[in-house]
Formats: sequence, C-alpha cells, structure tokens
Amino acid sequence: MDFSEFEDVAHRLADAAAAATLPHFRSGLAVENKLDGAFDPVTAADRDAERAIRDLIFKAYPDHGLLGEEFGLVKGASAYQWVVDPIDGTRAFVSGVPLWTTIIGLRHEGVPVFGMVDQPYIGDRFWGGAGRAAFRPAHGTQGPGTQGPIRTRACATLADAILMTTFTGLFDPQTELDRYLRVERAVRLVRYSADAYAYCMVAAGQIDLVVESKLEAYDIVGLVPIIEGAGGIITDWQGDPIRDGGTAVAAGDPRVHAETLALLNG
Amino acid sequence: MDFSEFEDVAHRLADAAAAATLPHFRSGLAVENKLDGAFDPVTAADRDAERAIRDLIFKAYPDHGLLGEEFGLVKGASAYQWVVDPIDGTRAFVSGVPLWTTIIGLRHEGVPVFGMVDQPYIGDRFWGGAGRAAFRPAHGTQGPGTQGPIRTRACATLADAILMTTFTGLFDPQTELDRYLRVERAVRLVRYSADAYAYCMVAAGQIDLVVESKLEAYDIVGLVPIIEGAGGIITDWQGDPIRDGGTAVAAGDPRVHAETLALLNG
Repeated sequence: MDFSEFEDVAHRLADAAAAATLPHFRSGLAVENKLDGAFDPVTAADRDAERAIRDLIFKAYPDHGLLGEEFGLVKGASAYQWVVDPIDGTRAFVSGVPLWTTIIGLRHEGVPVFGMVDQPYIGDRFWGGAGRAAFRPAHGTQGPGTQGPIRTRACATLADAILMTTFTGLFDPQTELDRYLRVERAVRLVRYSADAYAYCMVAAGQIDLVVESKLEAYDIVGLVPIIEGAGGIITDWQGDPIRDGGTAVAAGDPRVHAETLALLNG
Repeated sequence: MDFSEFEDVAHRLADAAAAATLPHFRSGLAVENKLDGAFDPVTAADRDAERAIRDLIFKAYPDHGLLGEEFGLVKGASAYQWVVDPIDGTRAFVSGVPLWTTIIGLRHEGVPVFGMVDQPYIGDRFWGGAGRAAFRPAHGTQGPGTQGPIRTRACATLADAILMTTFTGLFDPQTELDRYLRVERAVRLVRYSADAYAYCMVAAGQIDLVVESKLEAYDIVGLVPIIEGAGGIITDWQGDPIRDGGTAVAAGDPRVHAETLALLNG
C-alpha cells in the first residue's frame, strides 16, 4: 500500500469536507429528521460534504468503491473501498459543540488500511495506516503546518484508565448495558459524548479506552488504522477484528484491552 | 459600571491564564488528587493560571476581593469581588478534550455583573455584562480579531429544546435525580459533559437549556452575566437569583425556563 498517496488524497478530501461543513456550523441551520419519530439530525452540511468527498474520490480513483452515510454504497471494480462519514457526531454539530468530525476510511479487500479524522472548527486532524499515525494540531496553538507522529500511552490496569463512550443509552439494556457497566465501574474516570474524537484521544495517548456499540461501518472503519497505527488495539467485544461496524473496544495498552474483554464477557 | 474597563482587564486575565494552561494541555502532565479517595484532578496548569490571574487583578485593583478555586478567599475593601475558576472542566482537560474553560466572574455587592469564559485551545471566548454579551470565535475560522454580539434563541417549549448537563451522576439520588429526569424526558435532545461551555452555547443561541446542581460560586458567577447579557434567564431550581453556587437552570427563552421550573418542582 502506498501510504503517502492515500494520505495526500485524504487531506484533500478532508479540506473539501471542511469547506462544505464549516459555513453551516453554528449557523442556526434547520435540522431535518431522517427517521420517522426518532431524532436523527441530518444537515445540508452532511450532504454537501459527502458530495464533495465523493466527487474527489471518483476523480482520483474511478474504479474504487464508496460507502457513505448519506448516499449508500457505490460498488467499484477495485479491491479498494472508501468508507466515509461526513459528520460523525451530528448531535454535537447541532448543539454548537465542536467535537463532531469528518471520518474518512479506506478498506482493501474488506480490511481497514487507512483512516483520517478531521475537526475543522478546532483545526485538529488525525490520520493513520501502515503502522503509523499522525496529528496536526489546532491553528491557534502551534500553527497550521505543525504535525507529528502520535502514540498511545501505557496503562497497566483499568483502575488507572480514562474511559470515553458516547452515552450509556447506546447499549442494549437486555444484552449489553450490564456488561458495559462492569467496565465503567472499574475505571478511574469516564466521560460521555465524544464520538470519533474519543478514539483520536486514545491514539494521541490522552485517554486509555473507548467502549461502544451499534456502530455502522462508516462510524468505525476510518478509526481502526489510526488506533492501530498509533500502537493501540481495537477489536469488537469478542476480540475479533473490526471490519464492518457493530461493537468496539479501543485501547492504548493491550493490558487494558484484555481486562476490558474479560469484564465484558466474564 | 464601566463595562468596557472590566472587559479590557478580563481579556488580559484570560490571555494570562491561557499562557499558563496551554503548555500543559495534552502534555501528559501528572495529575494530583485533591481529595483523599475521590478523583478530583488538579494540575499545575490550574495553579499557575490562578496565580497569573490573581497577580493581574491585584495590580489593576488593589482593593478588590478575590475568590478562587485554588487559593480560596481574599477579602477586599471594595464592594467588587472577582470569582475565578482557572480550569473549569478539569476532567475534560485531563482527557485531552478542549471543552475545559477559564471562567472569570465579577460580583458587585454580591451580584454577578461581568463574566468571561475562554477556551484557549479552540480560541473561543465569550463574555457579557450590563445587558450585552459577545463572542470571539476560533482562530482557524474567521480570524482572531473577528467578534460580535451573541443572543439566545427563541424556543417555545421543552419538546423542541436541546438540553446540556455535566452528567446525571451530578444529581443527588434522593432529592434531585428524579426531578432532573422529568426535564430530561421532556426535551428533544440531551448532551453530557459540557461544563461552562454549555452555558456559552445557550448564550450563543445554539442550545436552549442547561440544568445543573452542586455548583460552587467559581463555577457559576462568571456565567450569569453572559446568559443574562445575551437575553437569557438563569436562576436556581427555586427560581431565585444565583449569587453563590448551588443549583442552576439557564435557558435562552423564558418559556423553556418556566416549563423547566414547573417540572423540577411539580
């Protein structure tokens, strides 16, 4: 895999997505309901960003496939498939909170090989693949050009770990919630409402663990290469590789990952 | 009250706090425990920022009082007292999530008259008093010099409202949790883990409601003039003015505020 080639394209995709999303952020934009009855905000920003990403991908790689939250599946002749969520964390987006992100993932024969997460309002961008992960920090701090590698941090035990998850309402009350709560009770600190940003905090060595469920492929495919590239470990709740959504346990240290799986399945 | 005088000083205080906090953010800084057994992170950043703010206040106003999270109470001869939380949201800070803020408040004869909230990593700064509120957005979006007034938004009913609160574990299980949950069940959307940033989102017309409890004076005094200056309403759960912490209901629209008080006390 030519890491740098996909890296350059992904930066262009993230820039194009940012140009589509930022004008709508905190603009008082009307929110549509995607599902009858349920609250699932989809904005013009979401669709504009996916359209921009899609156009750039097919211009660069006419034979690649694409799976997007908004436009569904486009099959390609190639073994490569892009998996894109233009706005992960739409609830943050509609609340004016800049923890939503654009997730850009790439699978090869079903295996996640490259990922990028961008938060354009803050200016934080994370990416990874092929055993490496990198970070470009916010504009206002170290300058837009500054970037460098990121690594997960060591954490010997859950008792020392910081855990993030979206919220406990995510877990199935019959089959998942009690198992999750065993993990929550074992950690030093838990924080909610972070979405993809939380996985980037694991990759950047700021927290130790994310536990989630009910993930779609576009929520998670782009995050796997960032966690793994930073030296972390990410699997589903059974310990199997993540290929296509479902459950996820992402840890910076394999000891925390093993302890979490034991509690989830004990 | 000379709004512009305090505004200028507060910008200098926030700049000094930022210079003290930012070098520690995401630095892998060791976290101390302030309370035996409980997890209450206090960082060198917290103390450095309060020291910087304190020095500047006493240089500008030798007779003013000061109440700070770290250094306690300094009585002054004047009727003015500054109330400062150098890092509100220490849990966000230690998790690498840039939703922690510096809160700078000013009371006159016990009444909150000016407030400023700064998130220096993002570059978002909010302030208010004397019937006005303003916002300076992130560096990366519209440039550091851009600023303008903010207003709360209209919201006719809780069924349309976005609610933010720190987390449900904040509420006393015997006397508060059930009352809070009545409000949570009535709203369109709830988000957790926002701290002072959530009140700024009410002031900026992005969300409609914050409901909290167990607040210290330094958590809330600086937020009251921002909410009120933006056209919102903020009281305790009984509907009385907030002077010194405790409970809080901050709403952008008086109809949402009234409906919330009715549910909390019904």
